[in-house]
Amino acid sequence: MGRDALLLGIDAGGTSTRAVLATHSGDCVGYGVGGPGNPTARGVAEASCGVAEAVDAALRAAGGTLAEVVLVVAAVAGHDAGAEARWLDPALRARGFTDDVVFESDLLAAYASGSVSPFGYGVVCGTGASVIRVEKEKTVATSDGLGWMLGDRGSGFWIGRRVVRAAAAHLDGTGPETALTEGVLTMLDPDGAAVLPGRAVSGRSEDLDRLIRVVYAGTPARLAGLTPLAFTAAGAGDAVGTAILTAAGEEMLHTFRAVRTEPGPVVIGGSVLSTPGPAHAAFLAGLDEGFPPIAVVDGTVGTLILAMRRSGIRPDEAMRQRITDSLRALRAESSPVDHRARRSRA
Amino acid sequence: MGRDALLLGIDAGGTSTRAVLATHSGDCVGYGVGGPGNPTARGVAEASCGVAEAVDAALRAAGGTLAEVVLVVAAVAGHDAGAEARWLDPALRARGFTDDVVFESDLLAAYASGSVSPFGYGVVCGTGASVIRVEKEKTVATSDGLGWMLGDRGSGFWIGRRVVRAAAAHLDGTGPETALTEGVLTMLDPDGAAVLPGRAVSGRSEDLDRLIRVVYAGTPARLAGLTPLAFTAAGAGDAVGTAILTAAGEEMLHTFRAVRTEPGPVVIGGSVLSTPGPAHAAFLAGLDEGFPPIAVVDGTVGTLILAMRRSGIRPDEAMRQRITDSLRALRAESSPVDHRARRSRA
Repeated sequence: MGRDALLLGIDAGGTSTRAVLATHSGDCVGYGVGGPGNPTARGVAEASCGVAEAVDAALRAAGGTLAEVVLVVAAVAGHDAGAEARWLDPALRARGFTDDVVFESDLLAAYASGSVSPFGYGVVCGTGASVIRVEKEKTVATSDGLGWMLGDRGSGFWIGRRVVRAAAAHLDGTGPETALTEGVLTMLDPDGAAVLPGRAVSGRSEDLDRLIRVVYAGTPARLAGLTPLAFTAAGAGDAVGTAILTAAGEEMLHTFRAVRTEPGPVVIGGSVLSTPGPAHAAFLAGLDEGFPPIAVVDGTVGTLILAMRRSGIRPDEAMRQRITDSLRALRAESSPVDHRARRSRA
Repeated sequence: MGRDALLLGIDAGGTSTRAVLATHSGDCVGYGVGGPGNPTARGVAEASCGVAEAVDAALRAAGGTLAEVVLVVAAVAGHDAGAEARWLDPALRARGFTDDVVFESDLLAAYASGSVSPFGYGVVCGTGASVIRVEKEKTVATSDGLGWMLGDRGSGFWIGRRVVRAAAAHLDGTGPETALTEGVLTMLDPDGAAVLPGRAVSGRSEDLDRLIRVVYAGTPARLAGLTPLAFTAAGAGDAVGTAILTAAGEEMLHTFRAVRTEPGPVVIGGSVLSTPGPAHAAFLAGLDEGFPPIAVVDGTVGTLILAMRRSGIRPDEAMRQRITDSLRALRAESSPVDHRARRSRA
């Protein structure tokens, strides 16, 4: 193919995995998306499959093979720099990559997506929630990220749990009326299958009985899926939805303050803080001067920044921007909407 | 045997089951304890077994058989008055009882254990938490009792979850220091098996890493077992433990207020509010005049009050006291300590 050796960055998340191929000069030449890639959450088999899917799609898009790749960096939750994990080796060996995969933390990759500054903060608030402080390009402090039973305050799960409890309190008469209630019942029991007339406990409404039945039929993790209802309700002026999201933003500030020392950039990832609304507003309102917020989509760009550093290159801000821009162009190309548009033009 | 026909009351809980045999004049003649008796929590097989164990022990203590019993009332969570449940029939038929079991709610039985007033309130705060309003001897309003995902605010689970999160926040630097932390680590990981040196995420302590590992290796329900740590810590002046228990008492007041109308007795059951401490104090401090608090051990006495009403007897306060006193005497006799004492005297 006559081009430079390539770097492969893998951002393996609990919902989907992103893979990107780039040259050492920061030109992204292939991008692909696959299924869940977190072995802790999904098991090694499913995670390997999700990563392989993303890698194959990126290779197809680039018209290349893993033989051209000189370094693979994979960002995975709980896989700190230098984690001795081997779970990805079989999938990559089968595709012709003979070297070892280098693991990095997903939080550091998210940070590096937004800044090449050796000092700064990474704030990620999606299904989970945590904040890191970066010094000399390494994670030196971590706050929260403790999972749904112990923490993840302000996260999607945290919000979803408050949404369903607000609906229950409304129906139970212990909390205020809220538009969340109808949204929760519609989302969890769309066809009303959980309504069993005459079966409610004395002094309890049928809707509350229905809510109890559907919630306990599912897993706690499913509650994170209720988060969009808070955004919709808050957008329509619902006081309860607004209060939940404002509290989420304040919880993230509290977590941030536990690791904050010197001024530095604050890179923000994850849907909760990047979607405009009360959580975003509450968090930004609490950032002092000297802590400029930088929004990132995910950790994909950062995996390449970290790969370059491993290769002895010192990527600067212009390089980070070059990767970001060329990746954005690839993503626009690979989006399903564009595929359909191209097909209809053909 | 030449004695009156007997009533059998069964108070079937999620942890243990109590059975009591009494005459229509309120003399308890047999008492026994068995395993868990809640079919929703434990399944029909285990619950039937727990109930049978308690019933057999009570019959042995009375030197009687089920053929002498004219009415069986079983109080079970979620089994409202007249619930058409048949799960207990096989166990009782096998013991010679040919009639149907009458089901009542565990909350109404707890209320009736403390008061024969046709109007009043029943407050139960143990592993779960709920409040009922009773009018004309029937439950007319229920608040909370929504389970650990939706409510049970102020309950043992609610407290245990706050205890473990307070320990995590302490170790994570996002919350104040608390004596709860050492208690939690010792209770969940007594032999330090979850300590894996050098495995912690960057910037996280080994103890926090250990806590995360043991918590996610268990079920959420296990967290209710941490509740005693809050009482111990609060007793020793720990501010975090005190604040959690005070908040639990206030949550119970909030739940109580959702069903409160006219003045009436407030019957209080469950370990959280009956153990002296900040929860108990906060709840009592919020009760206005005209709402006298009455503490009960459980719903056993109430099952007999409800059985008498089903038999056409109108038990008055003297009758409730007679049942309570004679049951207390039986319980003292059947306690393991007394057994040992009697044996050593023999």
